[in-house]
Amino acid sequence: MRVAVAILALFAAADAFSMPSRQFGVRAPSALASTAESETEEKKVDGKKASEDAPPVNIGWDSHKAVDKVPDSLVKEGDGPDGNYPMRSRFEKMCREAQIDITKAIEEIDGEGTFQEDAWVRPTGGGGMSRVLSGGKVFEKAGVNLSVVYGTMPQEALQAATERGVDRAKGMAPGERVPFFACGLSSVMHPKNPFAPTMHFNYRYFETDGGVWWFGGGTDITPSYINEDDMKHFHGTYKEICDKHDPSYYKEFKEWADKYFVIQHRNETRGFGGIFFDDQNNKDPEEHFAFSKECLNSVIKAYGPIVEKHKDDEYTQKQKEWQLMRRGRYVEFNLVYDRGTVFGLKTGGRIESILMSLPETARWEYDHVPEPGTPEAEFIDVCRNPRDWV
Amino acid sequence: MRVAVAILALFAAADAFSMPSRQFGVRAPSALASTAESETEEKKVDGKKASEDAPPVNIGWDSHKAVDKVPDSLVKEGDGPDGNYPMRSRFEKMCREAQIDITKAIEEIDGEGTFQEDAWVRPTGGGGMSRVLSGGKVFEKAGVNLSVVYGTMPQEALQAATERGVDRAKGMAPGERVPFFACGLSSVMHPKNPFAPTMHFNYRYFETDGGVWWFGGGTDITPSYINEDDMKHFHGTYKEICDKHDPSYYKEFKEWADKYFVIQHRNETRGFGGIFFDDQNNKDPEEHFAFSKECLNSVIKAYGPIVEKHKDDEYTQKQKEWQLMRRGRYVEFNLVYDRGTVFGLKTGGRIESILMSLPETARWEYDHVPEPGTPEAEFIDVCRNPRDWV
Repeated sequence: MRVAVAILALFAAADAFSMPSRQFGVRAPSALASTAESETEEKKVDGKKASEDAPPVNIGWDSHKAVDKVPDSLVKEGDGPDGNYPMRSRFEKMCREAQIDITKAIEEIDGEGTFQEDAWVRPTGGGGMSRVLSGGKVFEKAGVNLSVVYGTMPQEALQAATERGVDRAKGMAPGERVPFFACGLSSVMHPKNPFAPTMHFNYRYFETDGGVWWFGGGTDITPSYINEDDMKHFHGTYKEICDKHDPSYYKEFKEWADKYFVIQHRNETRGFGGIFFDDQNNKDPEEHFAFSKECLNSVIKAYGPIVEKHKDDEYTQKQKEWQLMRRGRYVEFNLVYDRGTVFGLKTGGRIESILMSLPETARWEYDHVPEPGTPEAEFIDVCRNPRDWV
Repeated sequence: MRVAVAILALFAAADAFSMPSRQFGVRAPSALASTAESETEEKKVDGKKASEDAPPVNIGWDSHKAVDKVPDSLVKEGDGPDGNYPMRSRFEKMCREAQIDITKAIEEIDGEGTFQEDAWVRPTGGGGMSRVLSGGKVFEKAGVNLSVVYGTMPQEALQAATERGVDRAKGMAPGERVPFFACGLSSVMHPKNPFAPTMHFNYRYFETDGGVWWFGGGTDITPSYINEDDMKHFHGTYKEICDKHDPSYYKEFKEWADKYFVIQHRNETRGFGGIFFDDQNNKDPEEHFAFSKECLNSVIKAYGPIVEKHKDDEYTQKQKEWQLMRRGRYVEFNLVYDRGTVFGLKTGGRIESILMSLPETARWEYDHVPEPGTPEAEFIDVCRNPRDWV
């Protein structure tokens, strides 16, 4: 139980939109989030005070403090490029540069909207820098969040998270907690036009003081209508990157995305997938870093042309309403299943950063079933039977 | 753990919008929902096949079947007025009559919209009858759901649910499951006008074959703006009913509502409360029945005049947007915290009935904080510091 809780916390650790792990399959994300509380109840039954129990993962959630000036870096001294953990600041720097580049490109596509930047720090170290564009010409809402987290986790959590963790935890005193570091860049973009898809990405790096590390991430797309050319371009861009790094990546990571982004109570995927990966540590870290970097730096290449193409498409009121209903599904997925969101909400993350992923508007119509043969019915069919696009 | 699961299932049992229990406090509803799955995982570790494990509560979720003709009653033969369990059909009849009366009154207030009726049955007995009005003149969306559920639960769940359960379960074979019956009427009404509040109610009766029973329910109101007269009328109506039945009721049930309807990640209540109660079995069942009946039959008296008064109020686009943001909060509460909703979604309830509670439209703006001194800021203040209205 403890294991599940702690691992989950890591996903939420970066105020991320979604930071899942394959460790626990696809079902019931909040099953994990909740075990923390079940455990607390059990402990109370044993006669202990709740206050005696350290939280499964300690990341100083409850005390994020806004700062006026955005700092150059959120990693601690000693975690810099010349310190003991150079990958920490390298990954942060890569994320920050991508955040700046991506938001610049999105502002150019939008033509009117600009990103608002907020930064905050935590007393335990780390913090976040968020950039949000609201009410643009092309984008209803677009956000890119950088987060750096310092925390501690139980050894069991580490052991469950990665095989290498088993060795690393050997020799530690029973009950001794493992300090960890996490850094991630997360984003959701919701354009106004129903023919311009929503896009989400999240890339993250995790490391313990004991030297266990892994990379995770993914980029996925959520249209409201099927456009095969768009999907060929989006999936094709990521397939090309995957193939360059490992011929097995695209198939594995595409299927992983199809499994993760499922609205189970609807038996529908949230969108048309993309790639999704976690727990990557079986190669030289430089190779994983290079892959993450290329994925992140290809977000605009994969997504930008699709929005450019459709931002001025004509549409009817009915098509807009359909898009808003799909946005309702987006809300359902994020609030009910997305592990980072659910855990973040229940553990006191910075709410505005976590819920930045929600669309500006969403719609629910009772028992809405598209007429057979319509584009909307075909769309649902793809959500129930994920396609190979390339 | 088992206990929590089973009890929770009962809340969801009636496809209800919200059927919570004080058994487990206010926090972390999905913590409970999820233990079912945690348990399954544990059992797999023990080497058993998942398929060998009966679900914690068996209510035949996965097989609700639509029927063309709405049946007169959903209770089984023998549970009728002359059978062994006359309260079952009496409660159902009371709910059905209230459903008909309330929907008729709402249609009259609306003046244009009509309710669409759907009915379904389950092979294990029971089923549902829903009435939904969409896109009316006054109401954006209004739904009233009747549900009848036959299922089984573990003895431990029963013991945890009510003190009388401890005795009732004595003498049963270890592992023997307790057959139960549940019937409830649930509703949410979302008017269009930002000055006309949303209203929710849920009244329910629970009984085991062994003779354990309890009543639960409540009516609560969710405005977007403060109107003291409205709140005095709404709370006053229910206070009057409470006082007639028990001088301790209003204070206890008002506080219960204020505690339950909390969006914990926002530190805000969903709305301005009302009354909320569960596990009521310390009086003659006739007294509890009479109280539930009067509460249910006073829904229109408490709510109708408020909608009538505000349905044609003038409002600005900004005020409409504020209402939609409050609807966003409604969505957050229902999808993240409402026990019936969360459990229903994860256990295969009839999705359209469960999510009928969601508004037609909802809105999320990044980091929206009302200007100090505005009605919107004052509204948030009440959500953080629940008031006594009467």
